[in-house]
Amino acid sequence: MSTELETGLPSVRQIQTLTRDEQEVELKLITNDLITGKIRWQDNQCICVVDHYDQPTIVWRTAIVYLKPKSI
Amino acid sequence: MSTELETGLPSVRQIQTLTRDEQEVELKLITNDLITGKIRWQDNQCICVVDHYDQPTIVWRTAIVYLKPKSI
Amino acid sequence: MSTELETGLPSVRQIQTLTRDEQEVELKLITNDLITGKIRWQDNQCICVVDHYDQPTIVWRTAIVYLKPKSI
Amino acid sequence: MSTELETGLPSVRQIQTLTRDEQEVELKLITNDLITGKIRWQDNQCICVVDHYDQPTIVWRTAIVYLKPKSI
Amino acid sequence: MSTELETGLPSVRQIQTLTRDEQEVELKLITNDLITGKIRWQDNQCICVVDHYDQPTIVWRTAIVYLKPKSI
Amino acid sequence: MSTELETGLPSVRQIQTLTRDEQEVELKLITNDLITGKIRWQDNQCICVVDHYDQPTIVWRTAIVYLKPKSI
Repeated sequence: MSTELETGLPSVRQIQTLTRDEQEVELKLITNDLITGKIRWQDNQCICVVDHYDQPTIVWRTAIVYLKPKSI
Repeated sequence: MSTELETGLPSVRQIQTLTRDEQEVELKLITNDLITGKIRWQDNQCICVVDHYDQPTIVWRTAIVYLKPKSI
Repeated sequence: MSTELETGLPSVRQIQTLTRDEQEVELKLITNDLITGKIRWQDNQCICVVDHYDQPTIVWRTAIVYLKPKSI
Repeated sequence: MSTELETGLPSVRQIQTLTRDEQEVELKLITNDLITGKIRWQDNQCICVVDHYDQPTIVWRTAIVYLKPKSI
Repeated sequence: MSTELETGLPSVRQIQTLTRDEQEVELKLITNDLITGKIRWQDNQCICVVDHYDQPTIVWRTAIVYLKPKSI
Repeated sequence: MSTELETGLPSVRQIQTLTRDEQEVELKLITNDLITGKIRWQDNQCICVVDHYDQPTIVWRTAIVYLKPKSI
């Protein structure tokens, strides 16, 4: 696995857009946990989500089941 | 993992066909969640499914158990 | 992961034989689901099983626990 | 992943020995299933175990938790 | 997988910072265990966390769901 | 994955030390099983643990959650 994020991938680009737009998202994890917040950054191993108190959670990609913009 | 989708794979081609035909599918996930909708796009990390309200869910391939066309 | 199926592997060859013989198989999945049917095709990411109504299910290899010919 | 089994690995060699000796083994799987039998063959994706009725089960390595010789 | 840690990754750098600052962290694992302590070291396979009695636990990256600084 | 163990990794070296010192360890597995014993050997796929009766258990690395020296 190289250091570079594969910015050609639709999934990576969508997450870039969600990050830039500071869109609220839901992350469903393999433990059935549901994490909500805004995406701060992504790399090819993890995605960092911050909650309303600006507390970061570094989520491993291998543990993600799905991600979706939070519906209004 | 390269950026290019391996379009020579039967599984990738079937998903391309299901996407183009806007076929309703069921995705069973390792958390036992069942997601239904139409496939919007795929890359080599994720598959994006949209529901009846056109809400997208980006599903990680590592979390998929099986995919099948929804029976009528 | 290359596009080519590694036909030198015993596991790949056994699945080729089971496919050609239209042998009924059981697939145990990590969600504890048990899928039965005949193998339609395999590639290096998925195995496709069809049921008695010829409905296909595309199963991810990463979600397979074991496969066995259905005992008579 | 290449087709060749890495026969330099202790784990691969131990399984070769257990196969040759027709030693009864226990395989614990991630679904908590326990499979017992003799190892028929291994490749770098799967291990095949046969039971007392000579029925084969092809187990995915990704689904194995541990393997041990069955204690007498 | 090479021996070198990819220090260019944001996730690796954040963990380096948390280690240097001896920040208390929470590690959620795929078994739903929650491990708290300070990070002693990381490599590309594991992260080592020590508890209040300086007892180390070597955690596999493949088993990590998320990591977060413990809130005060 | 090459045959050689990456002896430059802290995690590999720690396990080498624990093996040489015949230190009692606990291995937590993704099935929630807890295995205790002494490490006999490791390779890049498995770790072998022996119990008080010198019975070996070959544990897959992909199934390990954490490893720690058993506290006295």
